[in-house]
Amino acid sequence: MRIAIYGYGNLGRGVECAVRQAPDATLVGIFTRRSPASVHPYGDIPVYHIDELLKYKDAIDVLILCGGSATDLPEMTPALATDFNVVDSFDTHAAIPAHFDRVQAAAAASGHTALISAGWDPGMFSLNRLYASAILPDGKDYTFWGRGVSQGHSDAIRRIDGVKDARQYTVPIDSALEAVRSGENPELTTRQKHLRECYVVAEEGADLARIEQEIKTMPNYFADYDTSVTFITEEELRRDHSGIPHGGFVIRTGRTGWEGEHKHAIEYSLKLDSNPEFTASVLVAYARAVCRLAQKGDYGCKTVFDVPPALLSPLSAEELRATML
Amino acid sequence: MRIAIYGYGNLGRGVECAVRQAPDATLVGIFTRRSPASVHPYGDIPVYHIDELLKYKDAIDVLILCGGSATDLPEMTPALATDFNVVDSFDTHAAIPAHFDRVQAAAAASGHTALISAGWDPGMFSLNRLYASAILPDGKDYTFWGRGVSQGHSDAIRRIDGVKDARQYTVPIDSALEAVRSGENPELTTRQKHLRECYVVAEEGADLARIEQEIKTMPNYFADYDTSVTFITEEELRRDHSGIPHGGFVIRTGRTGWEGEHKHAIEYSLKLDSNPEFTASVLVAYARAVCRLAQKGDYGCKTVFDVPPALLSPLSAEELRATML
Repeated sequence: MRIAIYGYGNLGRGVECAVRQAPDATLVGIFTRRSPASVHPYGDIPVYHIDELLKYKDAIDVLILCGGSATDLPEMTPALATDFNVVDSFDTHAAIPAHFDRVQAAAAASGHTALISAGWDPGMFSLNRLYASAILPDGKDYTFWGRGVSQGHSDAIRRIDGVKDARQYTVPIDSALEAVRSGENPELTTRQKHLRECYVVAEEGADLARIEQEIKTMPNYFADYDTSVTFITEEELRRDHSGIPHGGFVIRTGRTGWEGEHKHAIEYSLKLDSNPEFTASVLVAYARAVCRLAQKGDYGCKTVFDVPPALLSPLSAEELRATML
Repeated sequence: MRIAIYGYGNLGRGVECAVRQAPDATLVGIFTRRSPASVHPYGDIPVYHIDELLKYKDAIDVLILCGGSATDLPEMTPALATDFNVVDSFDTHAAIPAHFDRVQAAAAASGHTALISAGWDPGMFSLNRLYASAILPDGKDYTFWGRGVSQGHSDAIRRIDGVKDARQYTVPIDSALEAVRSGENPELTTRQKHLRECYVVAEEGADLARIEQEIKTMPNYFADYDTSVTFITEEELRRDHSGIPHGGFVIRTGRTGWEGEHKHAIEYSLKLDSNPEFTASVLVAYARAVCRLAQKGDYGCKTVFDVPPALLSPLSAEELRATML
């Protein structure tokens, strides 16, 4: 399959790496809104301005969209699904149904296959919620995130007066995880599920007490959580907090038996050194599926829920049955 | 969907319970090789002799086959796929390709849909091996089983002279799990991955030292493992070891990044109070998918790898996108 990358930030760079690991994929090029000369891929890959994209229409089997969910993808995915098979990582959960409808209209009308909301949440976590709830209908599931960097919360801290830089970690609370695993079906408040750890570089002479207070009382972002604030130097931030790790847990517990006498727990967890590179690896696997669906004429908008798992693997159905079943 | 159960042992009883939890399923009846009068379901469900099965052909959407993999299913599944949509839990991994071919021939020729090898291994564990390897191609996966009862190993102990009853637990070794999770990609021997714990009721006056020695040196079953043997009374066996718990772990670790500089771990685990009831719950979810595939005219033999996840859920595609993605 011939893949092209649309947008070259952290996610686009991750896709470049992931395509190299796919035995059946080649990277046609990187398309950017910036000046192509200012973009430096890891490998020897051509970089084009997005204005040139349509010229390469016949050279691209799947276009992987590496824009952001806030403003890029809501416009980008329906627009590009008119001319390309596409995969995106749209992750604004509440807006997925509307995004689906717009992409579906574009892809179905033009005869393309578009897969939206791939990644790990939405994505692999969604799949695990679905499988587990289908198997254990008399049960309850819980999703925990972290330990990992939240870009949105880090940005919120940076906007505070006197803050030079910041990194925020979302941390699942062990006692809550244990209560869930035990099958007690606890009702957990926001505060009981996750902690927020903030590492902040303040400007010289800034009022640290005021910054800490502003963080801890910030509505939506921090006020509902137990939040710790640690002031560190710029050098410490660079040395100890330059990675983008993340991960989390999907746990469903449920009961079976004539009287519900037997308990079961299904747990899926991820521990990721690089959030964007893992997300990119999911996008490339789903690009393979999109390519195969489009070849069969199965057009329109899809999600991870619609894709037979076998389509993600470079192995044939026979090989999969012989080696993985 | 109208379901019937074929075979009423532990698995068949589990299916009876699981169908009750499915909002869209009704149980038409139980078919048995025994005398119907000798079979006592939990609920008020008709029991028929298997000779009567064809009379109910039009009343059954999916037949769930609850026979054993050693001798029942290799004959049963292809034979019944000629007249019914079927689901089985065929779990002899090495024989799956041959089983698939025979079921495929029968189902495709007669216009039925047959799903084989549903359950948790093969089944949910297989799915997790496939998804994880498609996402992290530069990696390695490991499957651990337990802590749980192995019926085959328990039976092997019971065949020893002087043994009245026995229960064998397969136990994954914590240090091996930790080495795998760390991403070290260890090469693990059989002995390093699992322990075997045996609880044995001996006949009065039996030579306990000889029994213990026979167990620990039994080829294939125990000789390659560290095995513990504990003699207990019949009453203790009944009191402490009457359940059929099981479970296990599928863990894949892998690397991403231009130089493979980032590590990731994907872990799926099950902790089951009742192995047959959980397996039965998976069978009922896949019966729903089989029913839907057959309605679309998608006939032939399928495995969990071929089924779009959405087909397992009683919720519509719209509901799934709005609530689980």
